[in-house]
Amino acid sequence: MTSDPTVSAPAETAPGRPDMAGPDTPFIHNAWYVIGTPSEVTRMPIARTVLGLSIVLFRTQAGRVIALRNRCCHRSFPLVHGALDGDTLVCGYHGLRFDCTGQCIEIPMQKTVPKALRVASFRVEERRDFVWIWMGDPAGADAGALPLQDWMESPEWDTVHAYLHVPGSYVHLHENLLDLSHLSFLHAKAFGTPEYACAPAITRIEGDDIEVWRHVECILPSVYSTPLGWTGMRARRSSGSKFVAPGLHVNTGIFENLDEPERSRNPTPTVKVGQIISPETRHTTHYWTIVARNFARGDTQMAGFMLSQFLAAFSEDVFALKAISDITRLEGDPGFREISIPTDRAGVTMRRRLRALADLEQPAPDPTPRS
Amino acid sequence: MTSDPTVSAPAETAPGRPDMAGPDTPFIHNAWYVIGTPSEVTRMPIARTVLGLSIVLFRTQAGRVIALRNRCCHRSFPLVHGALDGDTLVCGYHGLRFDCTGQCIEIPMQKTVPKALRVASFRVEERRDFVWIWMGDPAGADAGALPLQDWMESPEWDTVHAYLHVPGSYVHLHENLLDLSHLSFLHAKAFGTPEYACAPAITRIEGDDIEVWRHVECILPSVYSTPLGWTGMRARRSSGSKFVAPGLHVNTGIFENLDEPERSRNPTPTVKVGQIISPETRHTTHYWTIVARNFARGDTQMAGFMLSQFLAAFSEDVFALKAISDITRLEGDPGFREISIPTDRAGVTMRRRLRALADLEQPAPDPTPRS
Amino acid sequence: MTSDPTVSAPAETAPGRPDMAGPDTPFIHNAWYVIGTPSEVTRMPIARTVLGLSIVLFRTQAGRVIALRNRCCHRSFPLVHGALDGDTLVCGYHGLRFDCTGQCIEIPMQKTVPKALRVASFRVEERRDFVWIWMGDPAGADAGALPLQDWMESPEWDTVHAYLHVPGSYVHLHENLLDLSHLSFLHAKAFGTPEYACAPAITRIEGDDIEVWRHVECILPSVYSTPLGWTGMRARRSSGSKFVAPGLHVNTGIFENLDEPERSRNPTPTVKVGQIISPETRHTTHYWTIVARNFARGDTQMAGFMLSQFLAAFSEDVFALKAISDITRLEGDPGFREISIPTDRAGVTMRRRLRALADLEQPAPDPTPRS
Repeated sequence: MTSDPTVSAPAETAPGRPDMAGPDTPFIHNAWYVIGTPSEVTRMPIARTVLGLSIVLFRTQAGRVIALRNRCCHRSFPLVHGALDGDTLVCGYHGLRFDCTGQCIEIPMQKTVPKALRVASFRVEERRDFVWIWMGDPAGADAGALPLQDWMESPEWDTVHAYLHVPGSYVHLHENLLDLSHLSFLHAKAFGTPEYACAPAITRIEGDDIEVWRHVECILPSVYSTPLGWTGMRARRSSGSKFVAPGLHVNTGIFENLDEPERSRNPTPTVKVGQIISPETRHTTHYWTIVARNFARGDTQMAGFMLSQFLAAFSEDVFALKAISDITRLEGDPGFREISIPTDRAGVTMRRRLRALADLEQPAPDPTPRS
Repeated sequence: MTSDPTVSAPAETAPGRPDMAGPDTPFIHNAWYVIGTPSEVTRMPIARTVLGLSIVLFRTQAGRVIALRNRCCHRSFPLVHGALDGDTLVCGYHGLRFDCTGQCIEIPMQKTVPKALRVASFRVEERRDFVWIWMGDPAGADAGALPLQDWMESPEWDTVHAYLHVPGSYVHLHENLLDLSHLSFLHAKAFGTPEYACAPAITRIEGDDIEVWRHVECILPSVYSTPLGWTGMRARRSSGSKFVAPGLHVNTGIFENLDEPERSRNPTPTVKVGQIISPETRHTTHYWTIVARNFARGDTQMAGFMLSQFLAAFSEDVFALKAISDITRLEGDPGFREISIPTDRAGVTMRRRLRALADLEQPAPDPTPRS
Repeated sequence: MTSDPTVSAPAETAPGRPDMAGPDTPFIHNAWYVIGTPSEVTRMPIARTVLGLSIVLFRTQAGRVIALRNRCCHRSFPLVHGALDGDTLVCGYHGLRFDCTGQCIEIPMQKTVPKALRVASFRVEERRDFVWIWMGDPAGADAGALPLQDWMESPEWDTVHAYLHVPGSYVHLHENLLDLSHLSFLHAKAFGTPEYACAPAITRIEGDDIEVWRHVECILPSVYSTPLGWTGMRARRSSGSKFVAPGLHVNTGIFENLDEPERSRNPTPTVKVGQIISPETRHTTHYWTIVARNFARGDTQMAGFMLSQFLAAFSEDVFALKAISDITRLEGDPGFREISIPTDRAGVTMRRRLRALADLEQPAPDPTPRS
């Protein structure tokens, strides 16, 4: 545990960080990413691009989610335009029939099928709210390593979720979420409060964990005070950001009522936000958010209120990430170097980790399996 | 003549075919391409891009079609924005006057004109329905080599034609037309019938000819049965695809009435479809189609019915070629290799021929003539 | 002074001029460019791209114009989305506060600010109608070298100005303005007259000056004859084009009434047009025009008439420059070489000078200052 980095942390202000991931760093394949929600995946195939690769998703008759490379290995026609026939997907161009492993099992024009006719199939795990995909080395696909959090699926929490499309890099989205000092500025009108930026950031980098906490005392913004029934009361707000995996970030808010402390007990009012991040292309990102609370349980109207307040704030992040992407692409990088400051310590560590994970995979796994 | 390749043809399943043409293969210049229809070329200049080069087209006072490079050799202003003055085209920027050979013959600002001031002129041949252009080595421009078919201009056939713009590679359009096994899938609702895909493909590769035939017995789709008056009757349908030249593909349909054989005589009901293909850019293609029939002669209502049915089906090809182009450009080619199957034998041969023709021209002919 | 080049100038028709600037030549930074008009720069920051770099502009409380690099040195968020607080600009993402020199003077999350946290600041000079910026070596920023013209700010001239955005290269815009032989063609309907193209061009290239003059006798076009009250009268029209600097071109028109000579005196009716040119990107250009006249003084209705006539003509230039940019980018440059003619002598000299100025700067100045 490192205390206030303005006092003790080593300065992170050296210019130039070729060891940090950025928009042009190769994707990390050996990780779980969300590719959609269960309700999106039906008997009508859909396509979605993740890590720059187009994936077709559908359900078997028994309800299992199947994820195959969308590009037919024969002549590149997207399989999503084909037709499901039982548990097989028939390409809409020449009728090649693929089973759920991606193996072609029928070519209408001939009697035998060479084993080489396969499209990549990807391991998927369907959980309560999301469908996860593993696009890396199949040997590493371990459902035990899914970056799930207990609260995502526990009856002790009420959850709501939503989707945003980000015209920016997933690296910058992670960095955005890890340094909540921006709440006081980018989200000044949404759920930021001025105390935020000046609060000491407590950065914890231990093993795989990269986490930052801030504790402030303030009048809570409406997104929290309204469902808590604490409007106008002073509260202690503890906010944590944790990089969990390339595909998941968790933000936590814990609230103590300073005016009427008894309101803070059993359980301590807490909000957990799963920030689910799937790179689409180098410059675009899928962004799902799942908001869990242990108060105002069962109050769907309040749940809708909170979600709309969150989405208003997250849309400000989308705006910022687009603006960063636009100016970076307009100007290019020659002659420009980001400068980091102590409060970026967790972000810099995270970006170095993403870079190291990407480097481990070079050259990238080939999504075209061979027999 | 090779019989059913599912039995006798050598397997064509080896991965990777760097010897086959694809979207990025250089264009073939030493070939005739259609650049427009006679009615499009008037005394009002128009511009059209073929083989990545912008061409300006107009008619002389005597009615001859002239094709010049559209980019003024002086300062690149498109000549199409200039004005015709007799049989000369005056650039709309500085008034340089070009004759029908592309030679600049007047510069308003000076008394003499250097011979070097020329734009390329291209040999064109105007035939009944189309204007053809030769953009390669002028020495090779031989009207005798125009890929015209007798039926295109014979009084024994009724023809209609139309234009489609294809957001995809001309190579893929040729391949699409050469393997009609896709009729049963891509065109299942238009004019495909299920028998198609399973019918033996008879591939003939002999000298310059690349041709595939299939014979099926079926209830004819409406596009044929209606004008033939064979609705609901069983017929033998013979379908041929022939690669004629980089700019022309011919599909043939021959029909025999199995229920009332006497309906098939004098002449045997036949449809010829000239598939006229002109690469516009690497990723876009001009596509004219001319449909000829030797039945229902003079019935313009039936001609319109057939053309609209064909265009509905060909629009499905446009959709497929766009989808292939989109996914290929999204994902790029690293890690992906098309796999061919025996039914692709003609297509693979054709793509190898296109590649060989392109290789013959390297470096590509320079369209800027010098004095 | 060189007389009519059709007689005496050496031919400029050699193909290929790798020594001439074109759209892909690096920008010239050591020059003054207009970045906006005074009324655009207020206490509400605006962003504008010049030389491919995004600049944020605002006014101090005392009214001074400040120009900073728009891209925050910390995480690239555009400062234009931040907030002015007194004479400091606070980044809208993490709250870094920058003073008017671009130095970061406050980081809310820490007590000290490393000197390295700076964005580039640019010297600006605000004059009557325009705000000028110097983006090159700060040591070379000399207000005395502003390409201002006396008539731009003199009470003896009435001026109006306007802005056009050009989807083309600034090099081609300069060339357009330097060779007014195009008036007879591109502007045949606006303010060109046929005599123009054939009139001898008197080219003067002396020291830094590149200037072309033409003298014609004609019925003046309406843009001049109407405000002069010379409708239908014969006049001598002298037109000059002068390349002043990468950011300024001046066109001059001087008129003598041949039918009623006494109308031409005190002062001789003259129009000066400042053609203000700021490259935005390689393929787009900011284009301000300031039209000054020493007749029809104080007649704002006539001023509006003249400006609208000029803009109609200049829009034809915008059209031409876009068409040149489009066809050049469609076809690429391989196999194409501009051919120059004697009337291009000034333009070629100007393009060689731009190229030489660009070469002097390689590598380009780094806009990121270091402490």
